Amino acid sequence: MKIRAASETDRDAIWNIFNEIIAAGDTYALDPNMSREEALTYWFRADMYTYVVQKGSRIVGTYILRPNQLGPGSHVANAAFMVALDAQGFGVGRRMAEHCLSEARRMGFRAMQFNFVVSTNAPAIHLWEQLGFKIVGVLPDAFHHPEKGHVDVYVMHRSLLP
Amino acid sequence: MKIRAASETDRDAIWNIFNEIIAAGDTYALDPNMSREEALTYWFRADMYTYVVQKGSRIVGTYILRPNQLGPGSHVANAAFMVALDAQGFGVGRRMAEHCLSEARRMGFRAMQFNFVVSTNAPAIHLWEQLGFKIVGVLPDAFHHPEKGHVDVYVMHRSLLP
Repeated sequence: MKIRAASETDRDAIWNIFNEIIAAGDTYALDPNMSREEALTYWFRADMYTYVVQKGSRIVGTYILRPNQLGPGSHVANAAFMVALDAQGFGVGRRMAEHCLSEARRMGFRAMQFNFVVSTNAPAIHLWEQLGFKIVGVLPDAFHHPEKGHVDVYVMHRSLLP
Repeated sequence: MKIRAASETDRDAIWNIFNEIIAAGDTYALDPNMSREEALTYWFRADMYTYVVQKGSRIVGTYILRPNQLGPGSHVANAAFMVALDAQGFGVGRRMAEHCLSEARRMGFRAMQFNFVVSTNAPAIHLWEQLGFKIVGVLPDAFHHPEKGHVDVYVMHRSLLP
């Protein structure tokens, strides 16, 4: 498994992952019918670092890293992760998260914050807690889950200071 | 005092307020050196409703209202408010907030969330609490205040359901 900066030639692979994740509609507050162009514009925004995970010749995951806010809030990083559905459960998310924390530290961010962790996404929450993140906020009923209806969303945070 | 949808002819007045608020650098996580064009693009984004408060012939405040997230998160509204420095303390913020809550209800939002209330901004926090908002998250050291250094930021929330 190799993690590297995404390039133009990864766009199809990223869109395939992105599309199946948002179509499922159970983890991201994004329009499940977002077009390829909208999705790739979003995932390659100017303020973002975009990475992919390559396993053999296949892209199995992708993540973004960026400042969560501007100006006086730009010392806190934000990140988002997507793993291809059939590659989930094999540690791809963990590898990306560790890589992301290391990149964020290298760039000088003082902390990392996830703004929107759906409370029913147990594997993600478990992973973030293992990696030192804490729930610092609970947004009541902030996500409309396709099966469970309105469910809470967590804000999660960890310091990156030594 | 009259609150109405912003129009193209309000752009100068909005920029004057926006500029003095971000230049102060003590409430918004925006680049204090944002250009007029960047600021107005941000304040008139496609997903936003933009309003102004007019007192006589002068614009003394402006606010934006929008979905805080997309798709399965789009039932929660987000808003941001700016009052001209020399018009603060006369109830402009409260009038805008009440108008905003009413507009959000009318549009069918189920709740309103403020993502980034700087903990040193006592007048704003006091007003939000009076209007029924609760602190649902504390982001440690998420804002670099020009005098106080790194200070906490609150996520605030209130339901709009009957």
